[in-house]
Amino acid sequence: MPEIDGDRLLADLDRLRQFGAWETGVHRPTYAPIDIEARHWLAQKMREAGLEPEIDGIGNVIGRAPGNRPKLLVGSHVETQNYAGWLDGALGVMYGLELARQLPGQIDVAAWADEEGHYGVFLGSRSAVGDVSEAEIDAARNAHNGRELRTALAEAGLSGRPRAMIAPGTYRGYLEAHIEQGDALEAEGLRIGVVTSIVGIWTFRISFAGVQNHAGTTRMAIRKDAGAALVQLCTAVQHRLPTVCGPRSVWTVGRITLQPGAASIIPGAAEMILQMRDADPSVLADMEAALHDLIAEANAAGPCTVIAECIFRSMPKLMDPGLQAAMASAAAHHAPGLHQHMPSGAGHDAQILAQIMPAAMLFVPSIGGISHHIAEDTARDDIVVGCQVLADAAAEILAG
Amino acid sequence: MPEIDGDRLLADLDRLRQFGAWETGVHRPTYAPIDIEARHWLAQKMREAGLEPEIDGIGNVIGRAPGNRPKLLVGSHVETQNYAGWLDGALGVMYGLELARQLPGQIDVAAWADEEGHYGVFLGSRSAVGDVSEAEIDAARNAHNGRELRTALAEAGLSGRPRAMIAPGTYRGYLEAHIEQGDALEAEGLRIGVVTSIVGIWTFRISFAGVQNHAGTTRMAIRKDAGAALVQLCTAVQHRLPTVCGPRSVWTVGRITLQPGAASIIPGAAEMILQMRDADPSVLADMEAALHDLIAEANAAGPCTVIAECIFRSMPKLMDPGLQAAMASAAAHHAPGLHQHMPSGAGHDAQILAQIMPAAMLFVPSIGGISHHIAEDTARDDIVVGCQVLADAAAEILAG
Repeated sequence: MPEIDGDRLLADLDRLRQFGAWETGVHRPTYAPIDIEARHWLAQKMREAGLEPEIDGIGNVIGRAPGNRPKLLVGSHVETQNYAGWLDGALGVMYGLELARQLPGQIDVAAWADEEGHYGVFLGSRSAVGDVSEAEIDAARNAHNGRELRTALAEAGLSGRPRAMIAPGTYRGYLEAHIEQGDALEAEGLRIGVVTSIVGIWTFRISFAGVQNHAGTTRMAIRKDAGAALVQLCTAVQHRLPTVCGPRSVWTVGRITLQPGAASIIPGAAEMILQMRDADPSVLADMEAALHDLIAEANAAGPCTVIAECIFRSMPKLMDPGLQAAMASAAAHHAPGLHQHMPSGAGHDAQILAQIMPAAMLFVPSIGGISHHIAEDTARDDIVVGCQVLADAAAEILAG
Repeated sequence: MPEIDGDRLLADLDRLRQFGAWETGVHRPTYAPIDIEARHWLAQKMREAGLEPEIDGIGNVIGRAPGNRPKLLVGSHVETQNYAGWLDGALGVMYGLELARQLPGQIDVAAWADEEGHYGVFLGSRSAVGDVSEAEIDAARNAHNGRELRTALAEAGLSGRPRAMIAPGTYRGYLEAHIEQGDALEAEGLRIGVVTSIVGIWTFRISFAGVQNHAGTTRMAIRKDAGAALVQLCTAVQHRLPTVCGPRSVWTVGRITLQPGAASIIPGAAEMILQMRDADPSVLADMEAALHDLIAEANAAGPCTVIAECIFRSMPKLMDPGLQAAMASAAAHHAPGLHQHMPSGAGHDAQILAQIMPAAMLFVPSIGGISHHIAEDTARDDIVVGCQVLADAAAEILAG
């Protein structure tokens, strides 16, 4: 079995976090100059590890091992959310690099572009499985600043490059390691999570229409306050969903806007974004039905009108049982009694690669369950153990 | 008694609404080029009515009648809220112009700048009573776009002009007519409201601190969701305030923001603006106490922390009983049985002028109670009757 070099792995991770270092975290949004710099550094590290690197037309960095032996693809992503953490994505890519050194000729490594969704949804991995059209790229804009994806690619020097496609059958499977981003492992004192499935995510835009009016002269009795209607529905959702959800369901109202948004004006319109996640599609369906019931009740009661529109719907994706078993076996060796099977509450590139090959994921603990924040961290020992478990699992899969 | 020219009055109002006409309403924000154009047009109309007009260093348009007879000051404002109605403010200024024609030498007319609060709070009228420092002007910015007041004044050609000051004792009193902006008159089929007092407005910024985290991986049980805390407090406020408020109290949550405001991120911070209005300070105090009780309960329950800061507090202002009586007497003549005394739920420049002289206000009905909206309107007959009542009241006050 391979024996990974923990110090080298940690040194690689520490170097990568310097690209866009911000307080204790990292600000390295997709295609920003510092992100492109990091991708070129990664390509050079791949070359030093014996891989042939390519940065493709969407920004994917793919290092291919020479030769014709059976191979695994190992990867994750290197860009970050804005002003976020140092391990989200970076961990899985650096694990891949270390595995490529340990299992020469048998590991290809990928850093998928824009997993964090600055310009789209899993742009890099979806491009690699043939699911991103040129028209989608033409239309894509930065979610935060509206910048066109085409402009960003041009300024990053990526215009005109071909986009790498991964043909089904190329690999024995896809492995992705990631920080858990929750506290389930930490809460039970565990070190390794073997992912059973990646949750489905259903996101709704719920819009409220009332009548904008003067906040001083309009009697309470005759108001059609869209903001008050929003708050009322939001409260009803918070009370109703727990009665229909599963044990691991989560839901979030991440955005609320009132129009026009002034202290002295009764909101005439309001909007909230409600996102639900679960690994079981029937639970998601029950939660959606409960939402529609509450909206129907709100419309029947008045005085505002409410409509919901599903703006994103991904189905839960099961991880490959054989790959899971290899991970569990390696975990039992290096973290005996300190591992569990668990779903992933977050979306990951693995759910995209799973469309064309067996895929699996391994989690290491997140301290305090924190991610997408500069405080995001994992114990150094846990980082090293996670990589060793992934390396052993890869060796077992390749030997199988 | 004077007999006003209703056709001329309506023609003036129709001409003024063309400055910044937008759909059926008007977009004429303070110091915008179209607003400055309207102010110059108004100054010319004042000159034609025999007044000596001045546009001062804060944008107030003041027309003074020559001579030394006892005088009344009559006014309101000419700028509008963004994309709002045609009568809010304009009505009172055009009434003033018509009164100046009817009672030559005895009526000065003022259009106070920025009553609508694009750059500050009652900037024009407060400047005229000596309550706006140069430092306040230095610091003021546009509430919507952040533009500096100094820049706006410079581009409007107002830099370096003196600001007009009204000395106490100059006038017998201040009269302001305005659309009601509510539906109290319409609901009872009335045509004239004689304002007894202008409500106090207490505005609170309520801030919620939680922990920003991943919306997929953070279990519901351990979340510190600042947005959920906001919704919970907001619901509690909507249930508690009716138990302590007065019959005419109103309160509004006009703005809600969640940070960072993304579908996949649990809000780590949130903020809402709660505004309360009542004509009775003890009712306002009871409502504020209820708010603080609810916040204490929220902080005791956790998991987020809540703080409230009062960002605006105006006390109710009584209108002058003598001026009210003159208005009521004129209303009894021109709208017998169709007038009432009532508080004003909106703030008005009259509450500022009341600091240095007797002040009173007259309301005409708002169709559907609508204002601050392009649908804002008043029956043409009601517009004319209101001006006649104000003219009679002015004549009686000046004769008294």
